[in-house]
Amino acid sequence: MLRVFFVGDVYGKPGRRVLAEQLPKLRSNFDFIIVNGENAAGGFGLNRESFELITGAGADAVTLGNHAWHHKEVYGLLDDPRLIRPLNMPSGTPGRGWSTFEVGSERVTVVNLLGRVFMEAVHNPFLVMDRLLGQPDLGSVFVDFHAEATSEKAALAWHLDGRVAAVIGTHTHVPTADSRILPRGTAFQTDAGFTGPAHSIIGADPEGPIQKFLTERPHRFGVKEGPAELNGVMLELENGKALTIERYHYEE
Amino acid sequence: MLRVFFVGDVYGKPGRRVLAEQLPKLRSNFDFIIVNGENAAGGFGLNRESFELITGAGADAVTLGNHAWHHKEVYGLLDDPRLIRPLNMPSGTPGRGWSTFEVGSERVTVVNLLGRVFMEAVHNPFLVMDRLLGQPDLGSVFVDFHAEATSEKAALAWHLDGRVAAVIGTHTHVPTADSRILPRGTAFQTDAGFTGPAHSIIGADPEGPIQKFLTERPHRFGVKEGPAELNGVMLELENGKALTIERYHYEE
Amino acid sequence: MLRVFFVGDVYGKPGRRVLAEQLPKLRSNFDFIIVNGENAAGGFGLNRESFELITGAGADAVTLGNHAWHHKEVYGLLDDPRLIRPLNMPSGTPGRGWSTFEVGSERVTVVNLLGRVFMEAVHNPFLVMDRLLGQPDLGSVFVDFHAEATSEKAALAWHLDGRVAAVIGTHTHVPTADSRILPRGTAFQTDAGFTGPAHSIIGADPEGPIQKFLTERPHRFGVKEGPAELNGVMLELENGKALTIERYHYEE
Amino acid sequence: MLRVFFVGDVYGKPGRRVLAEQLPKLRSNFDFIIVNGENAAGGFGLNRESFELITGAGADAVTLGNHAWHHKEVYGLLDDPRLIRPLNMPSGTPGRGWSTFEVGSERVTVVNLLGRVFMEAVHNPFLVMDRLLGQPDLGSVFVDFHAEATSEKAALAWHLDGRVAAVIGTHTHVPTADSRILPRGTAFQTDAGFTGPAHSIIGADPEGPIQKFLTERPHRFGVKEGPAELNGVMLELENGKALTIERYHYEE
Ligand SMILES: [Fe+2]
Ligand SMILES: [Fe+2]
Ligand SMILES: [Fe+2]
Ligand SMILES: [Fe+2]
Ligand SMILES: [Fe+2]
Ligand SMILES: [Fe+2]
Ligand SMILES: [Fe+2]
Ligand SMILES: [Fe+2]
Repeated sequence: MLRVFFVGDVYGKPGRRVLAEQLPKLRSNFDFIIVNGENAAGGFGLNRESFELITGAGADAVTLGNHAWHHKEVYGLLDDPRLIRPLNMPSGTPGRGWSTFEVGSERVTVVNLLGRVFMEAVHNPFLVMDRLLGQPDLGSVFVDFHAEATSEKAALAWHLDGRVAAVIGTHTHVPTADSRILPRGTAFQTDAGFTGPAHSIIGADPEGPIQKFLTERPHRFGVKEGPAELNGVMLELENGKALTIERYHYEE
Repeated sequence: MLRVFFVGDVYGKPGRRVLAEQLPKLRSNFDFIIVNGENAAGGFGLNRESFELITGAGADAVTLGNHAWHHKEVYGLLDDPRLIRPLNMPSGTPGRGWSTFEVGSERVTVVNLLGRVFMEAVHNPFLVMDRLLGQPDLGSVFVDFHAEATSEKAALAWHLDGRVAAVIGTHTHVPTADSRILPRGTAFQTDAGFTGPAHSIIGADPEGPIQKFLTERPHRFGVKEGPAELNGVMLELENGKALTIERYHYEE
Repeated sequence: MLRVFFVGDVYGKPGRRVLAEQLPKLRSNFDFIIVNGENAAGGFGLNRESFELITGAGADAVTLGNHAWHHKEVYGLLDDPRLIRPLNMPSGTPGRGWSTFEVGSERVTVVNLLGRVFMEAVHNPFLVMDRLLGQPDLGSVFVDFHAEATSEKAALAWHLDGRVAAVIGTHTHVPTADSRILPRGTAFQTDAGFTGPAHSIIGADPEGPIQKFLTERPHRFGVKEGPAELNGVMLELENGKALTIERYHYEE
Repeated sequence: MLRVFFVGDVYGKPGRRVLAEQLPKLRSNFDFIIVNGENAAGGFGLNRESFELITGAGADAVTLGNHAWHHKEVYGLLDDPRLIRPLNMPSGTPGRGWSTFEVGSERVTVVNLLGRVFMEAVHNPFLVMDRLLGQPDLGSVFVDFHAEATSEKAALAWHLDGRVAAVIGTHTHVPTADSRILPRGTAFQTDAGFTGPAHSIIGADPEGPIQKFLTERPHRFGVKEGPAELNGVMLELENGKALTIERYHYEE
């Protein structure tokens, strides 16, 4: 049995700080830790400093999302087997979209996948997953499904039910209260929530987004300073399925 | 002090059934009950039978959403002061977008409001709310913000903080685990979740959406039969602000 | 040298009427005629009667678009080698996305392709075309690129320049005044325009769309009666490239 | 009778160059010249240098679009009565959304208006126009409707038919071959096309957009160097209606 911890989108300096302070304390409770880092560098993308901070804090694998390519330094990091960019992109895309890790006598495969509803066009995540699952020896498959629409996230989870251990959504930055094990054994939660400034609008200082919505003109968004929260999901996986799923929430 | 219960989007026959069975049992715990009924008639819109079932079960006010106009019978119901359609629409739109209710010696104003990110174009919800709040004697204002994007929902809540008692999101059909009281006293939860079939994709039988996503072709969606869940939010309001907010979840 | 005539989206009864009246008169001027039929049946999709009318009027090939699957009768027509549905869809999709025709001693391959900007998610049209062009003996390739955004249409044309004979856009229902031969020999026009009611809003009676935009509520759209227009593109192709491109416009 | 010339979105240095060279030669053929300048500064927005170049070349009025606010220098220009930003924005937005000019013994009112389909949310352009047309003494009203969807553009033109002199679309950067006078006297063309680099993808060097579409990753777009085209519309207006409409096209 594998105890897995997944941490949602780490956002800017407040997200990095709360992760660096809290993850080491939690490390011994888990066999494997996955952290989504798509917003780690100033709210957009991942740079070397952020990647090293996240892995230094205890992450075994780091996933990305629609902001994967925002910071150019990410291209220099993609050879690292712990860094996983979205899978459903053209062949020839730098880096890897999934990676299998040996954890003691067990195996866990981490996948990063993008949705398409209300998002930029990428390859069909449903078909790409069907193809991946033809691979041998994947062990327990953990899917970080980075997507906007609740319908697309639930549809993927039901489609993969019994064939992967977990489908956990990211991207909306708000944790959902719907953690469950589907009938054939796949753990599902629509969104893990994010790890970043607590009194913010999905990471940003409220002033910027409010002015944008009020004036219907562009406004610069700043990362909100102050206390941060850490949102995650705790899972127990066995034989490619999930035994338990539970939300984790910490707030400074 | 007003004890308010809000029930998220009632969806199809399973949603109506669980509401009719559970709401009467809860009725005495609350002073005022608001139910979002935008999906009550077969998953889309509200007809007379659904409206009567919802009010018969104990709802004092019924709100709508982007599917408000789907079922033509709704036009015959809009004279009822308990039915509240989206506020941010052109002047001359049938029905009312807000309504003030006397509850004992207190007053509560219920507003239904549409978001615009990833949705059809309507009037600016931020500006429309600023205008509404110039009205006298609104009492505690409860806003059902029917919107897709987490950023827009949080931005409205922060914009209205201290000026309304609660901003509760609807539309995604998934409850969020972020209930909180903002610094100036407004209760906020990104989404209340929905009231409908439990083993479904936001209400639909999984087969339809899965086939649509797999084939990239249209497929007919059916309402999922079987056990239902009821998602809601419990609030205590006083002097136009919120004292407490708590999620409510029941599953058959 | 092949003289090719392409007719844009035939829309409803007025579109079918003007096509049936005019195409037979033009038939002898061309070696090969392609007609987009995605709106032939009442404005949405293609049924057997419409398909037979279009081919009976002289079309050698019929293409489709985002409304391909709207009318269920289309599934019974897809075995006909003259009917070409969008290419960039999952393997296993019924019908064919391209077809090669012998015309005297020449060959023309007709492709129907969907865009993704502001449209439903499908397979990457750029990559799908690159793969198709690895096929032998395609002759002159004509691409009906059914897409919304001018940027995506121009980008595909430039990407395929010199490798296909023509990229002609459809879907917006408005002909563009930008017919040109790109530097390496591919003919390009952003949109061919449609074939349907002249005093309409892309086919619909103006009243429906105007009411929708004014009221921000759904309204039923009707096909506009009255005089129709026929929009098309005339091309001369040779050795897989284009010699000439010219707009064709007829109005009752 | 007023002879009016409208020039579509001037894009970057090639657009400014062709405008500065050609407009002075055309100046004496027209009584009033309107130029859309939303892409004049490097492809995005308008700065002081661009505004002075456009007015110096002979423009009597300059309109904007969705990129109006991109370049911060625009805020210092909005007091100039010749500069017209989108009308359908919140009250309090800097600048003016319409302006009436005396031309000899005649009057022309220039309006800049944004669409909402496939674009950012703004105020309802249909209702905002209805309100504006209640103003007295507007003379002949010219509407630059900056919008993406052909349906929205045609719907506005039909809605305003007989009440304004012209509705000319901008934003897609491709001229449409559908210039016409609607039944009650309003001239309409779905899009005027743009003024910028000829061998480009709506202004950009083809390499950037092609790489973006091929790789599904962001790529930097550059303004295409080389020969430019100028697209415009020539109109004759009288008593608030249009007598003639004709496309203008020049290519270096
Ligand atoms: Fe994120
Ligand atoms: Fe994201
Ligand atoms: Fe709903
Ligand atoms: Fe909804
Ligand atoms: Fe069409
Ligand atoms: Fe279409
Ligand atoms: Fe533009
Ligand atoms: Fe634009």
